[in-house]
Amino acid sequence: MSEINKVVLAYSGGLDTSVILKWLQDVYDCEVVTFTADLGQGEEVEPARAKAQAMGIKDIYIEDLREDFARDYVFPMFRANTVYEGEYLLGTSIARPLIAKRLIEIANETGANAISHGATGKGNDQVRFELGAYALRPDIQIIAPWREWDLTSRQTLLDYAEKHKIPVEMKKGKTSPYSMDANLLHISYEGRVLEDPWAEPEEDMWRWTVSPESAPDKPTYIELTYRQGDIVAIDDVPCSPATVMEQLNKVAGANGIGRLDIVENRYVGMKSRGCYETPAGTVMLKAHRAIESLTLDREVAHLKDELMPRYASLVYNGYWWSPEREMMQTMIDASQANVNGKVRLKLYKGNVVVVGRASDTDSLFDESIATFEDDGGAYNQKDAEGFIKLNALRMRIAAAKRLR
Amino acid sequence: MSEINKVVLAYSGGLDTSVILKWLQDVYDCEVVTFTADLGQGEEVEPARAKAQAMGIKDIYIEDLREDFARDYVFPMFRANTVYEGEYLLGTSIARPLIAKRLIEIANETGANAISHGATGKGNDQVRFELGAYALRPDIQIIAPWREWDLTSRQTLLDYAEKHKIPVEMKKGKTSPYSMDANLLHISYEGRVLEDPWAEPEEDMWRWTVSPESAPDKPTYIELTYRQGDIVAIDDVPCSPATVMEQLNKVAGANGIGRLDIVENRYVGMKSRGCYETPAGTVMLKAHRAIESLTLDREVAHLKDELMPRYASLVYNGYWWSPEREMMQTMIDASQANVNGKVRLKLYKGNVVVVGRASDTDSLFDESIATFEDDGGAYNQKDAEGFIKLNALRMRIAAAKRLR
Amino acid sequence: MSEINKVVLAYSGGLDTSVILKWLQDVYDCEVVTFTADLGQGEEVEPARAKAQAMGIKDIYIEDLREDFARDYVFPMFRANTVYEGEYLLGTSIARPLIAKRLIEIANETGANAISHGATGKGNDQVRFELGAYALRPDIQIIAPWREWDLTSRQTLLDYAEKHKIPVEMKKGKTSPYSMDANLLHISYEGRVLEDPWAEPEEDMWRWTVSPESAPDKPTYIELTYRQGDIVAIDDVPCSPATVMEQLNKVAGANGIGRLDIVENRYVGMKSRGCYETPAGTVMLKAHRAIESLTLDREVAHLKDELMPRYASLVYNGYWWSPEREMMQTMIDASQANVNGKVRLKLYKGNVVVVGRASDTDSLFDESIATFEDDGGAYNQKDAEGFIKLNALRMRIAAAKRLR
Amino acid sequence: MSEINKVVLAYSGGLDTSVILKWLQDVYDCEVVTFTADLGQGEEVEPARAKAQAMGIKDIYIEDLREDFARDYVFPMFRANTVYEGEYLLGTSIARPLIAKRLIEIANETGANAISHGATGKGNDQVRFELGAYALRPDIQIIAPWREWDLTSRQTLLDYAEKHKIPVEMKKGKTSPYSMDANLLHISYEGRVLEDPWAEPEEDMWRWTVSPESAPDKPTYIELTYRQGDIVAIDDVPCSPATVMEQLNKVAGANGIGRLDIVENRYVGMKSRGCYETPAGTVMLKAHRAIESLTLDREVAHLKDELMPRYASLVYNGYWWSPEREMMQTMIDASQANVNGKVRLKLYKGNVVVVGRASDTDSLFDESIATFEDDGGAYNQKDAEGFIKLNALRMRIAAAKRLR
Repeated sequence: MSEINKVVLAYSGGLDTSVILKWLQDVYDCEVVTFTADLGQGEEVEPARAKAQAMGIKDIYIEDLREDFARDYVFPMFRANTVYEGEYLLGTSIARPLIAKRLIEIANETGANAISHGATGKGNDQVRFELGAYALRPDIQIIAPWREWDLTSRQTLLDYAEKHKIPVEMKKGKTSPYSMDANLLHISYEGRVLEDPWAEPEEDMWRWTVSPESAPDKPTYIELTYRQGDIVAIDDVPCSPATVMEQLNKVAGANGIGRLDIVENRYVGMKSRGCYETPAGTVMLKAHRAIESLTLDREVAHLKDELMPRYASLVYNGYWWSPEREMMQTMIDASQANVNGKVRLKLYKGNVVVVGRASDTDSLFDESIATFEDDGGAYNQKDAEGFIKLNALRMRIAAAKRLR
Repeated sequence: MSEINKVVLAYSGGLDTSVILKWLQDVYDCEVVTFTADLGQGEEVEPARAKAQAMGIKDIYIEDLREDFARDYVFPMFRANTVYEGEYLLGTSIARPLIAKRLIEIANETGANAISHGATGKGNDQVRFELGAYALRPDIQIIAPWREWDLTSRQTLLDYAEKHKIPVEMKKGKTSPYSMDANLLHISYEGRVLEDPWAEPEEDMWRWTVSPESAPDKPTYIELTYRQGDIVAIDDVPCSPATVMEQLNKVAGANGIGRLDIVENRYVGMKSRGCYETPAGTVMLKAHRAIESLTLDREVAHLKDELMPRYASLVYNGYWWSPEREMMQTMIDASQANVNGKVRLKLYKGNVVVVGRASDTDSLFDESIATFEDDGGAYNQKDAEGFIKLNALRMRIAAAKRLR
Repeated sequence: MSEINKVVLAYSGGLDTSVILKWLQDVYDCEVVTFTADLGQGEEVEPARAKAQAMGIKDIYIEDLREDFARDYVFPMFRANTVYEGEYLLGTSIARPLIAKRLIEIANETGANAISHGATGKGNDQVRFELGAYALRPDIQIIAPWREWDLTSRQTLLDYAEKHKIPVEMKKGKTSPYSMDANLLHISYEGRVLEDPWAEPEEDMWRWTVSPESAPDKPTYIELTYRQGDIVAIDDVPCSPATVMEQLNKVAGANGIGRLDIVENRYVGMKSRGCYETPAGTVMLKAHRAIESLTLDREVAHLKDELMPRYASLVYNGYWWSPEREMMQTMIDASQANVNGKVRLKLYKGNVVVVGRASDTDSLFDESIATFEDDGGAYNQKDAEGFIKLNALRMRIAAAKRLR
Repeated sequence: MSEINKVVLAYSGGLDTSVILKWLQDVYDCEVVTFTADLGQGEEVEPARAKAQAMGIKDIYIEDLREDFARDYVFPMFRANTVYEGEYLLGTSIARPLIAKRLIEIANETGANAISHGATGKGNDQVRFELGAYALRPDIQIIAPWREWDLTSRQTLLDYAEKHKIPVEMKKGKTSPYSMDANLLHISYEGRVLEDPWAEPEEDMWRWTVSPESAPDKPTYIELTYRQGDIVAIDDVPCSPATVMEQLNKVAGANGIGRLDIVENRYVGMKSRGCYETPAGTVMLKAHRAIESLTLDREVAHLKDELMPRYASLVYNGYWWSPEREMMQTMIDASQANVNGKVRLKLYKGNVVVVGRASDTDSLFDESIATFEDDGGAYNQKDAEGFIKLNALRMRIAAAKRLR
């Protein structure tokens, strides 16, 4: 490792990354550039400025990346109906490549030769940050303090903060005991009681959704308009990608939609328990499948379904900036050209129910053929006999050999 | 086609297959053997006997196949977490191979050289019946009246029945306007208003589940015990496969669980709209993924996920009795050796929530490694650096070339 | 089927299609348009004009499609390293979509509402012609005489020709007893002695290649230049796609390269024996893999390899004009952006040996890292420990549980 | 890392592992157990005994594992038609899991808590040894001297040997400048001139095969008998697995068969150049595909082809002892039940030509259906129309929408 001249730190303004900031200054004796992004986590990012300034930072980047995040990361991923291990909507995973990209771009702008982040050595996020960074700038140096230092508990962090007079603004109100991450797509919870996979999380852990029990007794109906696989309007009101997500988070969260409680397999080799709230994402997945069911060719849909788990693993494992993810994306995007139309949904106490789908221009649903009534010759039932007989031929030949 | 000497008919006792029975006697001038199976459709099968006798049938097979169906078809399919096109749990598809098998076995026993069924020439069921039959007996002759005759509407059927004095016992109470199919795994609805994919089905269409709105205001908790991937007990009470399904249908249906409304792609090439109630199956899928999340190796789980859509298509398209389905099943079954343990579920107004999973013998969840607390050296965070660096190497080399 | 007003016939000028021409005129009493294409089969196409004129045809299309064929069909297919069932290079399959396309375009130009071809009802070619035609013009009517008429042997064809005074110009010299098909990519042989899969074909069956035994005792070296996955020059001489293939056919055929003798699985359900000569294709596959080995990312290459068999089946089965083939092609083409460079080959008595590959601009081979000598720190061997340990973690956890 | 009490070393008797032996004694101050295996590398293993004794080793394991290797590793792998990156037959890869297994078994027998090997930190072999070892004994400690020590060149090794009086018996005759590995399946060459991918290897590098140029001018014909996918006899003489390989190596090598020169992607992230001689394996792959072409169902064969690249990567990357490889193997092995029969091959100057395949009991080739002659009604050509029409239906519906 050559000498670190300047390091760009992914800085939230919280205790951990404030300690890291100080620790980088001390241990590496180098200038630190802070980068703080609003990805829709629902907390103010501006306060990070004062804290950074208080620790002597000159280059402070604070950015609102909500539209970039929704448009260039979340939406492309949902075109693939992406779900990891049958359940997880990849809320944390999909934010990391954007942060990695900005860290590298800021390093390039500021002449830094290193980046740093606050992810632990046990998790997926370190991998996602670092694979992205290496792919975008192969000579970048990466400082992952959690893999290096001896501050291995909350108490040692607090002691370090006190000793170094780091401004730790204690949050008002309830402090969560969980390890959390949030952005427009989800909020996640790990650790503590969740480390026992038999234990049900307490109701007051959840922050973005009401419980199905507390949700309204009347359903909410909404209509989503799709253009090339992306939602472009809600109830006929055009919305930007980030607005789509904010609106859907609100209405779905209010109807108790989007909670998930799973055991997942981390890329670094262990199983872990996670709880997630993904209100908008839960609606988006269901609705996207519905509009595709009407407008996508069967074999295209099936091929997408077969490749989806692999695409999901690429995102989960941190390979967003890999050539194989990009290659798959060209195929997924190409498949969406005709995914245009509307989906009508009923939201009710945790349920997302598709109650209608339509596409004026691109529906492949042909009532004249599908009907149980007289179809006027649109479909010749006798064709089925030949279809079946030739599909059966190889099995008939094999059976005949077997019986001989 | 050589001469038909005797034909085994899949006979429900309803109007359609009663007309077919008579039509076969008239047109083919041959003996007919009837086969009626209880697959858990929820209607008596015994009345079919008197009707068949009234039409002069001598060989009448009426069989309770619920345990065979659950044990040898539904359960193996759920080991694969099988879902067609992201949504459909294959309730109709999975029953057809069993019926095809019995039709052929009965043909062999009774010396018949043909079988017949009441599936139309537009649907998937004809394919499933016939591929199965051909695979099991390659020289069987198959009579599919809907592809041959000119009785193309309900009225012509009724006229035929009246003219030939076929006993059409009108059902008491409401007659469904929908084309329906039912067995232990599901009940399906097609046709009529559903032929418009924008139209929401009326509440009174659904028969097996209450609406989420009408479901109890208190959740129900249940515990399922798994052995080798199959449910063997509910709330610690050992149950046979069919009993598992009956019990789960009852408790899930009472909690508004299992309704589905989709547009699907038929094997014969058209899109069609279907509504399904699959109360037990909806619970079983969720719970099976949960017990696998704890006990299955990551890469095994991912490989299963990647192959699942293909397995689902095989079942949907009628290839249960094909060598490729059997080959895949050996792999799926082998994967389930350690899928043992318990899953705790909360059922509430349409929601199936996993709230706990445990396996005394086979959990791969290692708290000592996964913990956010001090792990006493079980995991060396420094290993992550090498892991990331070598996984990044190919991308770094490529980026370096690109930047040159 | 509505009335046939005019039919476009894929016309070779040989006995079979000449009889079909006459038969169409007689049976369908309609105007016939003939279409004859030079795809590099090595026979003059112009003589078809006089024959067609002699039978009263007014619209006669005779076209040299060699460049279209090589550029838009063969080359894209080779970007995927396409091989069917591990052996077959799809020479016949890949020509059919082009013919189907021209048949439909000519039907559109001439106001015909039907097309016709000379493929039998047992083979793959009927499927390839017809799937293509239906995909490009869904209301087209298709006349496949071999599935309709009673001229089921060569003798009945000859009788019919004589009776109707069809000019059957007997070929001079040897007449092959085999069913053959030829174009720039290959020549194929089926039938007769080949119907016994234990029988070795006689040496004089082969037409485009010398036997390895008869090939020169000195090897030939050639260099191929690739741009974006396609060959653009041979021995530094720029060549059009068709010229590439003609040149390679010549040099490879002269060195005994490209013979293949296989049993393959037809889409219609039976196994069949085929022999093929594919001199250029055999060289192209080997060379393309070589240039990719140097310039393609590992995971991109592996994903291509996993999808290749499916792509090959699509081509073999006649789905060139399907949306799923087109979707896959976007991905394959995207992967080729950096597949630039040179491959040096040694051709010798049936062997194609890669003896060098280079890419000034896009090689991902990094000698400084790969070397067994001192690499000056380009690669840190200690990284491997962490890489292995985390990749092993899930198996270690499982083993520890098992041993407990 | 806890203290090393005893270490089992994979010991060849050559310079490298002799230096490692001494170095382990010195640096770790622990007892060393040596393990030397005959895997068919073609060199005596017994001389390793005296060398080990000379360095004070008490527990010396020298084993002939050729039959284990061929039967339990090579043969199962060939059932899958395994090829890595389209070319490489995995000769080195497939030997490592057996060595890993024996190292662990010997550690268990001798009470050792560590193993050691001579693979470098840049290659695949370290991964294969160590993943296998960890999977079989999760608490094993692994010493990989090449990742630890400072003996980084051949000269430093020689100096170390001289200084420590390690008996380095200089090989008589030619010493290869290449890094080599050999076993029953292949011999490999890496390094030196091969590090330039444009350089053709010199003829005298190759050791197991004559060049095609030097091979006999007359072909050799052989017949291989298969039972359940494995070769059990050559020219009707029953052979054990290892004998099959020895015989085929001899006859194929004498005919110039089995040379390969490629650039491959290592699991640790770099591309490398390797040359391989795999005479028996080259014949086995070709012959196995041939017997499968006759006896395997089409869809089973295609599924195998689609999964093969993944299986190959598992073997290449060192995951032989993983649950996913074992799961795939159950499927592959199940597919081979009917792969019985004979293949006749012509070997000539580098070419392996299949000239016949037959299976009395399991051929699925049905001449009565495949024939171009009159088939007596075995196949109804009219079935093809329905087959094509329904396969085209989805594309026709889409085209009709598009044209509207």
